[in-house]
Order: sequence, then C-alpha cells, then structure tokens
Amino acid sequence: MKAVRLHEFHARPAVDDVPEPKITGPLDVIVKIGGAGVCRTDLHIIEGQWDERMHTPLPYILGHENAGWVHEVGSGVTNVRPGDTVILHPLVTCGLCHACRAGDDMHCTSGAFPGLSRDGGMAEFLLTSARACVKLNPETRPQDVAALADAGITAYHAVRKAIPLLHPGTTCVVIGAGGLGHIGIQCLATLTAATIIVVDANPDALKLAEQLGAHHTVVADGGQRDAVADLTGGRGAHAVLDFVAEQGAEMDGWAMTGEAGSYFVIGYGGTLHVPTLDIISTERNVIGNIVGTYNDLAELMALAQGGKVTLHTRTYPLDAAADALADLDAGRVRGRAILVP
Amino acid sequence: MKAVRLHEFHARPAVDDVPEPKITGPLDVIVKIGGAGVCRTDLHIIEGQWDERMHTPLPYILGHENAGWVHEVGSGVTNVRPGDTVILHPLVTCGLCHACRAGDDMHCTSGAFPGLSRDGGMAEFLLTSARACVKLNPETRPQDVAALADAGITAYHAVRKAIPLLHPGTTCVVIGAGGLGHIGIQCLATLTAATIIVVDANPDALKLAEQLGAHHTVVADGGQRDAVADLTGGRGAHAVLDFVAEQGAEMDGWAMTGEAGSYFVIGYGGTLHVPTLDIISTERNVIGNIVGTYNDLAELMALAQGGKVTLHTRTYPLDAAADALADLDAGRVRGRAILVP
Amino acid sequence: MKAVRLHEFHARPAVDDVPEPKITGPLDVIVKIGGAGVCRTDLHIIEGQWDERMHTPLPYILGHENAGWVHEVGSGVTNVRPGDTVILHPLVTCGLCHACRAGDDMHCTSGAFPGLSRDGGMAEFLLTSARACVKLNPETRPQDVAALADAGITAYHAVRKAIPLLHPGTTCVVIGAGGLGHIGIQCLATLTAATIIVVDANPDALKLAEQLGAHHTVVADGGQRDAVADLTGGRGAHAVLDFVAEQGAEMDGWAMTGEAGSYFVIGYGGTLHVPTLDIISTERNVIGNIVGTYNDLAELMALAQGGKVTLHTRTYPLDAAADALADLDAGRVRGRAILVP
Amino acid sequence: MKAVRLHEFHARPAVDDVPEPKITGPLDVIVKIGGAGVCRTDLHIIEGQWDERMHTPLPYILGHENAGWVHEVGSGVTNVRPGDTVILHPLVTCGLCHACRAGDDMHCTSGAFPGLSRDGGMAEFLLTSARACVKLNPETRPQDVAALADAGITAYHAVRKAIPLLHPGTTCVVIGAGGLGHIGIQCLATLTAATIIVVDANPDALKLAEQLGAHHTVVADGGQRDAVADLTGGRGAHAVLDFVAEQGAEMDGWAMTGEAGSYFVIGYGGTLHVPTLDIISTERNVIGNIVGTYNDLAELMALAQGGKVTLHTRTYPLDAAADALADLDAGRVRGRAILVP
Repeated sequence: MKAVRLHEFHARPAVDDVPEPKITGPLDVIVKIGGAGVCRTDLHIIEGQWDERMHTPLPYILGHENAGWVHEVGSGVTNVRPGDTVILHPLVTCGLCHACRAGDDMHCTSGAFPGLSRDGGMAEFLLTSARACVKLNPETRPQDVAALADAGITAYHAVRKAIPLLHPGTTCVVIGAGGLGHIGIQCLATLTAATIIVVDANPDALKLAEQLGAHHTVVADGGQRDAVADLTGGRGAHAVLDFVAEQGAEMDGWAMTGEAGSYFVIGYGGTLHVPTLDIISTERNVIGNIVGTYNDLAELMALAQGGKVTLHTRTYPLDAAADALADLDAGRVRGRAILVP
Repeated sequence: MKAVRLHEFHARPAVDDVPEPKITGPLDVIVKIGGAGVCRTDLHIIEGQWDERMHTPLPYILGHENAGWVHEVGSGVTNVRPGDTVILHPLVTCGLCHACRAGDDMHCTSGAFPGLSRDGGMAEFLLTSARACVKLNPETRPQDVAALADAGITAYHAVRKAIPLLHPGTTCVVIGAGGLGHIGIQCLATLTAATIIVVDANPDALKLAEQLGAHHTVVADGGQRDAVADLTGGRGAHAVLDFVAEQGAEMDGWAMTGEAGSYFVIGYGGTLHVPTLDIISTERNVIGNIVGTYNDLAELMALAQGGKVTLHTRTYPLDAAADALADLDAGRVRGRAILVP
Repeated sequence: MKAVRLHEFHARPAVDDVPEPKITGPLDVIVKIGGAGVCRTDLHIIEGQWDERMHTPLPYILGHENAGWVHEVGSGVTNVRPGDTVILHPLVTCGLCHACRAGDDMHCTSGAFPGLSRDGGMAEFLLTSARACVKLNPETRPQDVAALADAGITAYHAVRKAIPLLHPGTTCVVIGAGGLGHIGIQCLATLTAATIIVVDANPDALKLAEQLGAHHTVVADGGQRDAVADLTGGRGAHAVLDFVAEQGAEMDGWAMTGEAGSYFVIGYGGTLHVPTLDIISTERNVIGNIVGTYNDLAELMALAQGGKVTLHTRTYPLDAAADALADLDAGRVRGRAILVP
Repeated sequence: MKAVRLHEFHARPAVDDVPEPKITGPLDVIVKIGGAGVCRTDLHIIEGQWDERMHTPLPYILGHENAGWVHEVGSGVTNVRPGDTVILHPLVTCGLCHACRAGDDMHCTSGAFPGLSRDGGMAEFLLTSARACVKLNPETRPQDVAALADAGITAYHAVRKAIPLLHPGTTCVVIGAGGLGHIGIQCLATLTAATIIVVDANPDALKLAEQLGAHHTVVADGGQRDAVADLTGGRGAHAVLDFVAEQGAEMDGWAMTGEAGSYFVIGYGGTLHVPTLDIISTERNVIGNIVGTYNDLAELMALAQGGKVTLHTRTYPLDAAADALADLDAGRVRGRAILVP
C-alpha cells in the first residue's frame, strides 16, 4: 500500500510502497483510511522535537488523526465489524491500568500512539485496536470528520477542563485560531457563556473566529497584551487557552492570565520562564493538556453531529502530503488540511 | 507602643516607639498581639522582593502572622468583643466582591495585607477588621498558635487543594520541612493515605519530618531527583508541594512531578524554566498557592484543637526581632520563630 | 406606604397602609420597589405550608422577589448609594459564618428571608442589607428583571449544579415550563449541549419551551413517563430538574431519572416515596435546591444582560395583588406575574 | 465441584455437586476460590428482593465477594496468569462503554454480576474476566481479604464520595457498625478529620466501632435521633452513611442529616418517605451508592496493605454456608462471615 513515511529528520517525508498491516492479536483492528489530518505536530516530528521522548525507529508512517472504515478485526473484537465507519481515538490503550479505568486513558501506562510511536494513518490502511474505534453513522464521510480525531479532541479536552472556571461573567482568551483553535472557539461558544477574546497574527483567521463565536478579536502584532488588558479592565482573563505556545505566545498567554486564573498550554515549541514569586503572588496555574480521552472524542462527535462544531478543512490526495505540510508550515491553511488516500 | 519597622530595604528593621492604632470604621478591630510569627517572607520583604508588587511606603511595621486578644472594636462589629482570644486571618477583606462571596477571599478585589501592604503585627497592637477574627477558646495562648495564621494556613491551603489528587496508593513529595513544611506534612498525614516523601537539606529537619508522618526522607545533597525517582519506580509523584521554590528547588519540584501530576508552588524566590513541550507531553500542571482563606484557617484550627497538628516553635521577645530574622536566615530555626511583645 | 399583607392563612392578603421601614443598623439599605414578583411560594405561604418552619408572626408583608432603586443607606454601606438601580438577593446574610464565606450564603446561620421570615417587597419600600444588593445599569427597569431575583436565581442555581452531569450526549428532563422552568430551559440551552425534554400539562407552556430551546416536549397527560422512556431509549435522563414536585410530578421525576442520574427537587408540595433498594440498585441521587447564592444572581444577571435569558412577564399594579395570585393559582400566567407599586 | 446454590426463594440454599466452569472467551479467567464472603444481600436474594430486577433463573450459585488464585485464563488475558493471588471486583465489565471508560464501571451497560445475575463464588471455582482481577502479593491469604471485595469496596466507595463534604470541623454519622460499617469507620478515620458518630443497636458493635475510630457512639434504642441532635448542637450531620437503610434506619438517617448535608444510602430494604418541602427548604441530598469501581477496590487494597483497614472476620467451611447465613441473620457475626472451600 502507499504510505507517507519519515526517513530522516529535517527532510520531507516520502510516499512509499509498503506492506499492509496484519492482525496479530485478538483485539486488533485494521482500518481503511478515509481521511488523515495534517497537524503542526507532524512538522514538529520532522524537526525532531519528539525524537528524544519517543525514540521511534525511522522510517515510520506519519498520521495521528484518522477516520475510515473497519477493514478486518481480531477474534475478540465485539464493538465493531468490517464495513463500520469509524473515527479513531489517537491512542491504542490497554483498558486495564488505573488511568484507563479512571477515565484518563491518555495516560495509559502501556499505550501506543500510531503516527508518533509506531506506524500511523497517512496510508491506505492503519493497524489500531478495538478500544480506539468510535462508531459513526454509516453515511458519514471520514474525510469530513478526521480532523476531530486530534485537532478536535485536543481542543475539546482543554475546553472541558476550563468549563468549571468559566461561569457567566468571566473571560476566556484563545491564542491561535487555526486547526485546533477554530474548534476550541466553537466548543467555548456552545458550552459556556464566557466572553471569548481571540488572538492571532492572521486577520483571516480572526475573521473566521468572529463567525464561530468570538466576542472580540486581537491582532497579534506586538500590542496583544495591552489589548487584552484593555478588554479585561486590567484584570486579565479567567482562563487562557494557548493553541500556539511558541514564538512568544507562551509568555503572552501567561501575562494575559488574571489573578487566580489558569493558563492552559495546548500548543508547544516555546519555553516558559516564570519567577515563582509571580506564580504565588497571583495564585495562577499552568495547566498541561495532551490530546484527550476516548470519551472526549465521543462527546465531541455528539457536538459535531448536533451541528454545534463545524470543521473547516481542505483536502489533498495522499501523494500531495508534502504540499499539505508545506502549506501548513507557511500559514496557508484555514482550518485543517486532510489527506485522502 | 513598641513596633518592629522596616526603614530601608537590605537593612535590618528597627524597634521603634510609635503611636497605637485607632478605630476609624464601624468594622475595625484592634488586637493586642500575643504572638507574631517570623516568616521567610519577612526576609524577602527586607530584600525588596515584594516592593514592586506592593509599593508600601517605608517605614512600616512587619508581621503578617498574628494572634492575640481583642482590645477594641468598631460600632458595627458583632462577632467578637474586647477580651476575646483570636487568631487573625492575614487579609483584611471586604466580604462583598465575587471572590469573597465565592469562598476565595484571598483574592478580595479590595483587600489589605497587614505586614505587607500596611502596618503589621510585630508590635503591641494591630489594626484589623471583624472579618479577620477567628475566635478561640479563651485559655489558648496566642503565642502557641500564631504560626498557624500564615505558615499553617498556607500549608493547609495547598494540602487541601492537593487532596483530590492523593487517593490511597499515590505519592506526595514535600520539599522543605521548615516552618510551613512541618505543618504540611502533618496535614497530609491526617487527611490522606498517600505515601509522603520529604526532601530537605537539613538532617534535623528530616528527623522531625519522620516523627510527623513522613514515610521516606531524602537529603537534598544533589542526588534528590534520583532518590525520588527510585522511590516512585521512575514514575514521579502525583503531587509535589514545594515549600522552598528557590535556589534550584523549583526545577527539582517540576522534575519530581510525574505524568498527569501537579507541582504546587508555595515557596518562592526562584524562576521556573519549562519548555511547553514538557508541559503538554506529560500533561503536568503548575499550581499557584497564596496563603489561604478564612475558612481554611478555621478548619486548620479544628485540626489543631483536635491534636492533629502540633507546632514546633521558638519564642523571642519583640526586642529580639533582628535575632529571630537572623536565625531564620541562617537555618537555625526548627519549626517557627515567634515574637512575643 | 401601601403594602400587601397576609393577615391569616387560607385567606387572601390585604393591601394595607403601613409605616415605611427605617434604617437602624450601619449596613441597612432601604430600597424603593420597582417590581415585586408573584411566586407559587406565595400561594404555599397563604396555605400555611411554611408556617411550621418560619413561625413568622402575622400580619406581614409578602414578596421575596424584588428589584428597585436604593432609597437610603446605613452609615457603613460602601457598595451602593441612593439612586442606584438594584436587584436584591432574596436573603439578608451575615457574611461572617462558614456558609457565607464558603460561597454558600443560602445557608447563612443567621440569615433572614424578607417575604417569608419578615416583611417583604410587595410594598413601596423594603428594608434589606448592603450584602443583598446587586447593582444594575441605571437604565434597567426593575419590573423587567425582578423575576430573576427568585424564579431566575432558583432555576439558575439548579442548572449550575447539574452542568457537570450534562456533557454532550446526555439528556436533561425539565418538569414544568412556568415561572422558574422557562428560565431554567434557557440556562440549560445556553450552558450545556444536552438534549432538553420538557414536560408540562399545558400545551401553551410547551410551545414557549420549544421557542426557548427545548428539543422535545411531552404533554403531562398520564403518558409522560412512557414518553420520556421512549425518548431516552429506555435509559432515563442523566438529570431531571423538577420545578413542580407536587401532584405526582415528584414520582414522575424520580422514575424518569436514569441509572447513576440525579433528580433535582426545586418545586415542592408533594411527597417522595422511594424504596432504598431502588436508590442503591441504580445509584440514583435526589438533590435538594433552595433559591441560590448572591453570586448565582450576579452570574444570572450577566446572562440576562448578554441576552441569553429573556423573561416572560405580565405586570399588575400593587393593588391587584389578589388578581395576580388568583391568575397564578389558576394557571393563567405564562412566565411570571410582577407587581409594580 | 461443590457449590452453594439457591433453588427457591425463602428456602435455605443447598450444597450441590456441579460441573466446574469452562473458559469460552479470550478474556475469561477461572479463579480457585480461597474465600467467599457472606453478605446481607445474600439474605435479601433468598427473600426474593432482587428477583424482580435480576430475573436470574434458579438454581444458581450465590457469592459475590470473592478472592482466590487464578486457575486458568483465556488466550487474550495479559494481566494475570495461573497461580496469581487475586481479589475480584464483583462485576464483570466490558471496558468499552462510556461508563467503563469514565471510571464508573459499576454502571457498565453490559456488565454481569456473579452471585446475583449468574453463578457466583460460593464454590470451588468461579468464572470471571481479566478486567475483574486485582493482583495481590503472593503471600496474601484470600480468606483474609475476601470481605474487601464487596463489603469493603461498598463502604470505601461511599466514604470516597463523602470526603469532599467532610473537611475538618464537620460531623459524619455512620448507621450500622457491621460487615460494611466497621470498614467504613476505618476509612473515615484514615481519610478525614471529621467527628465520627456511630449508631447501632448492638453494644458490642459499638465497642468495636470505638476501637476503630468512632468519636461518639449511640445505641439505637429509640433515642438515637435526639442523641445525634445533642451531639451536633441541633444542626445534624454534614454527611450520614447509612449501612442499614431498613427497619426505620432510613428515616433516622434522613432526620440526622443537617441543612445542606447529604444522606448516603448504602444498605437497603426500607422505604424513604420525604415531603419535597423538606428536601428543598433544607437543600439536603439523598445519595445512592452501589458497590464501587475496580479502582475503588485497588485503592482499598492499598489502604489494607498499609494497615489502615483491618477486617474482622469469622470463617466457616463451604458446607456450613447455611450456618453462616443464619448467624448473619440473627446478628451473631461481628465483622464479616467468610466461607472457605
């Protein structure tokens, strides 16, 4: 089958011809890919940022945001069968550890992460497990929803954690209105009555943000901290959701967080430098966020099927993976790029 | 009256003769001080660390950890009367803002902080308000409990926030077994079944920690990160309570925090440097902590009166304030130093 | 001044000429009433249902849902001044007890409840306290918002407690789409993505419910339990908000609550009969609700001013209080009846 | 093998010779029973109380509180192997539904309950699944811990839900100091600083309660409501854990619950009759409780292995099951009766 593989860091991935995956365990599931999202994390993988943490032997297939149709299942699989339309929780989890059982399966002690720690879904077929499959209406087109499997779940997971802080009368700043941010804004607008301020360097992204529910938009042109201070009467925001967290956004995000507020780190790439006196004198928090749980994805699908979250996507054929990555890197993608094999 | 006043930064405070405070508002309360704690924050004030944030005009009276007897009350005070033994919530709060009404009075939008933002309690008398008074059994000696008013409440506040993370089978690291830490350890031992690991550079402090409920102690001699990694099977702690957060402890605390865990910053003075990739890939949190609420203090008094929290203190006459500060700075105080006017 | 007073139980209240209230304490506030809501609780008071609990000596002035303009203030009042437009938290609370400080001021240990435990607001002037006043934009007409002071806050309080149960994909049943229910539906529609099923005996009320955000409506004609079972695939609802809780609604509400779900009692008058086996075998909860906190009211005003909650009211002159009560009793009021002095 | 089977309701179970269970699915596990607890629920099953809900065809093997050694495993089992010492979560759960994934596996939508809905563990061997096994230290004697599998987990589950209500200074009433209650008292004493009041009709049970951490004990001789009112200054308890909930205890429990408090129903058999006015005017809650989650059991084992929870048990050979049931029914068992095959 055709697959987009990374052969070396700092080089563009190649479209290779590789063997199809095989079922070996009773809970294995092979999915025929209908859509595979292209993510800023793919750029970070190519830059080698994840190598130290993952040590995944090269070459391997990229793609951690996948939807398609069940192709083949192991002998113990009871929840899906061949032909089912599915979107995939990005992790392959055990279901037996304390984290999996506590509703926190992102922290499965023996999980695998296709597209990061082993072969992913920028290919014709993907090997995953029964536990990762969220069954969809048969008529759903996988390419239309694939972006929910990582961009969507990650944005939803952070918003869900922020909801208890965002009672009516509060303010939430969103940094970055791209692939993740444009979903996060919709989740906030649907699930809270908070005032939403969106910060982005790109005026087109801000225009989209307004349509999706932002109450105020701020161009990140150097004056963004002052603008947020003005909009919040000098108090800062109750929560800041930072979908960028690099190139200075991370220090902006912290500075925009008000007393007793929380700064949610979702993007990455930058480094936070914070005196502990600043942390304690204001009792602010920094909240880590990594993808989301299977139930987060299932809940997000309920939102999407109810029309509360709409994706903005642009499709590319699998062969054009390098173009999609280049467009993303250059800021030419509104919403999310999706590869269709 | 006699009072310990700071006249300039980086210089030792003087014991001056100053006028007694006067009642001017209906909710004012004047307390005759029975005990005023000496805190690392007093050292930080003298170093000028708080000046940028507080801008308090010099000279002013130090002392934010106070207990004593009600001396005089304003016309609208209903909850205490002259002669009552009281311990004082360190903040003077309005009771009318959203924070005060939400059980979060540390973030009162018009609060004052005697000893930081105005004259404090290292004196014969202190001006505070009705809302700050916690009434005690008449026979309680203020000097025996004063340390609960800041060291105690701060430690309890952080422990209370950590409790939901610390179900049986989890591990909590405590960095620093001094004035705050020795109370935090007792709160943890009473209110959770977590395994408690205490890290401190001072072997005597660790000996005290063991008596107070620590399951493991680690000397901070350079090998503390490895020691905690060993004790946690390489997973790190579910929560780290850092009562030091300077001179490298802050980076230790972050490193000792396990995946999905929380690092509680309570001490201060250092600076945290954290790549956002480290935050998101492990979904760790940094939790700010500042003193505690009035109810925290009331609950802590219930623990103390039930014998669950015992203070280790050393008293000094008011005139010896400089000695007490010097002893604290040199690490010569086990537990807490208390000035007795 | 004119005032609507209850002289004996089971008799209609009279419009009397009584002395105006006077300021006696430093935190007292006298409000000139602009609108006083008429509530089912007023009918229950007249029936004597609250006498056993309140023992309020007759005659007294009814009216616990009030808005108007500050007329006079005590010497210690700092948050409002004469002329301010205000809506009033229905309780007069102390601000000093554990409950007041814990964000739970409905359970103030020394609170008073004008209109139930002492003279209320169906009059030209009302005596309350500084802590009860929520300041509004000067141009707000009190009669337009008064219904938020009790019907609104009560509905919002219950919804706020239910939100953590109502993630996307869940179902909430609302029993009763009257004065409280029509606000509750709007709060649910704004703050959750749950599927909302509204049950009421009155087809007009159900028509209003649909306009306000109900996804399904069910006529309470005897088949309501089956209808809800059908709409939930036999599983029952995750939460049931019962704004009636009398005349059989209470047993309906319990029966409509699904496994691990919660039945919120907000209305009253009936009696619940539940075998403990039914409680434990399904792990269902019964959640009590009484009015709401000051912060609930402030947050609800934020929703109302953002246009997320719109009141349906019908005004009557103060002299027509008996007509308003009769209309309410006969089910002739859509939304809420408001007396305007 | 020998097994204790129920052939008809209202008759004592028989010890029969039946075929051993067989592995049929990849995740099946057969456990050689080392200890099977005898529970008040077994008496209720015999009385037919569960038949309406479970419809389990007679005869079937009783026993839902089991520990032993893994005897045989299916092809897909990875977490245990033959010879492992295990205690069993009482439910056989799917791991795939929303509840299982949300840390709420007691509400598995396709779970089975050996001993209630199919053959249980009062036998030489029991068929369960990989997900039910909690691995223990090899030297643990199953008969010493079996009572934690149902009595223990149920008590712990309720205490864990009550902990957020039980900050220092609060009061918790425990009704019933038998098989479940004597564990609940220890969990409360270890995990909270609440004042614990234990109510039981049996003076010996109260003596045990005192040794286990009760601060006050009350004989249930008719004056128990007054006694609790006296001990709480007329305010009632913040939480009541009712391990009896029949023969009047259920109305006692509700009456002992203070304003804004919660009444936890754990035992069963009686019927609660509560006017909705009583529920709302005090904002009290009734909280259902059914067994507990797998993680609850794992956490409880951590408490037990740390010596924080000690069981009081009395063993009987499997053949003497009828004697054990009779002793339990007659109130002759202190702690828990355990059958040892």
